Amino acid sequence: MVDILHKVGIKSSSPNDVYQALTALDGLSAWWTTTTRGEGKVGGVLQFRFGAGGFDMKVLELQPGKRVLWQVIDGPQEWIGTKVSFEFKQGGEWTFVYFKHQGWKEPVEFMHHCGTKWAVFLLSVKSLLETGKGLPGPTISSSTAGNDAVSFPAR
Amino acid sequence: MVDILHKVGIKSSSPNDVYQALTALDGLSAWWTTTTRGEGKVGGVLQFRFGAGGFDMKVLELQPGKRVLWQVIDGPQEWIGTKVSFEFKQGGEWTFVYFKHQGWKEPVEFMHHCGTKWAVFLLSVKSLLETGKGLPGPTISSSTAGNDAVSFPAR
Repeated sequence: MVDILHKVGIKSSSPNDVYQALTALDGLSAWWTTTTRGEGKVGGVLQFRFGAGGFDMKVLELQPGKRVLWQVIDGPQEWIGTKVSFEFKQGGEWTFVYFKHQGWKEPVEFMHHCGTKWAVFLLSVKSLLETGKGLPGPTISSSTAGNDAVSFPAR
Repeated sequence: MVDILHKVGIKSSSPNDVYQALTALDGLSAWWTTTTRGEGKVGGVLQFRFGAGGFDMKVLELQPGKRVLWQVIDGPQEWIGTKVSFEFKQGGEWTFVYFKHQGWKEPVEFMHHCGTKWAVFLLSVKSLLETGKGLPGPTISSSTAGNDAVSFPAR
């Protein structure tokens, strides 16, 4: 088992604002993909779509201001069954988001791509909170244009 | 053992240009840190400095246009002995860089930070090759300002 790990510091007086961006549909739509649908409560399923591809996440755990945990129930084969979590710690004027995408069976080529993409989208969360404007898909971002043009999997 | 993995697609007609940016002092200075010194040949040691902190990398392997392998011989405790590699594959007009930072003993908090930072610096390599301008340190980049303000380790 191998994991993707990230940490991003977001200027925010409370972890509740970041928590909101990671749980409410309008928050998720503003940093990951504008085509986000579904039920964000525990037991619900969130559907994130990027053109033909996308991910279905079952919400396993919600601790307001502290932690969000999803499990992938549909999407690229390598993602199914993996878990995605966000934990928040406040340090002065910063909310630190600790991100984990856990349960990959093998460090496949696609995992390299996803490692970079998650960083880009976590920086989109940061941008959303700090400037009011995220950089959500499904439009291909210039930062990973090469990857997306060639290797983003159809679902 | 846990690894940091990334992939970035860079618009470039040949992997040799990316290879140059990852081996020549002026290339390295233009995307990672402007304070880069040392010997870039196999067996040499490259010194990357960020204010008070930094990393010493021994160059273990150089395959022009294909692969670069370093080993960390000085720097933050968690990095010492770990290996950093870049492999290149050409796909049409894109050079894909497969990045690995391997040999972490534990998935510590600092590894989350480094996972995100490596993504940011690999996107700096991309920017350098595609626009002629990278985003090197030691100036703190806005994209990870929170992390750097609080947790970038002194060496």
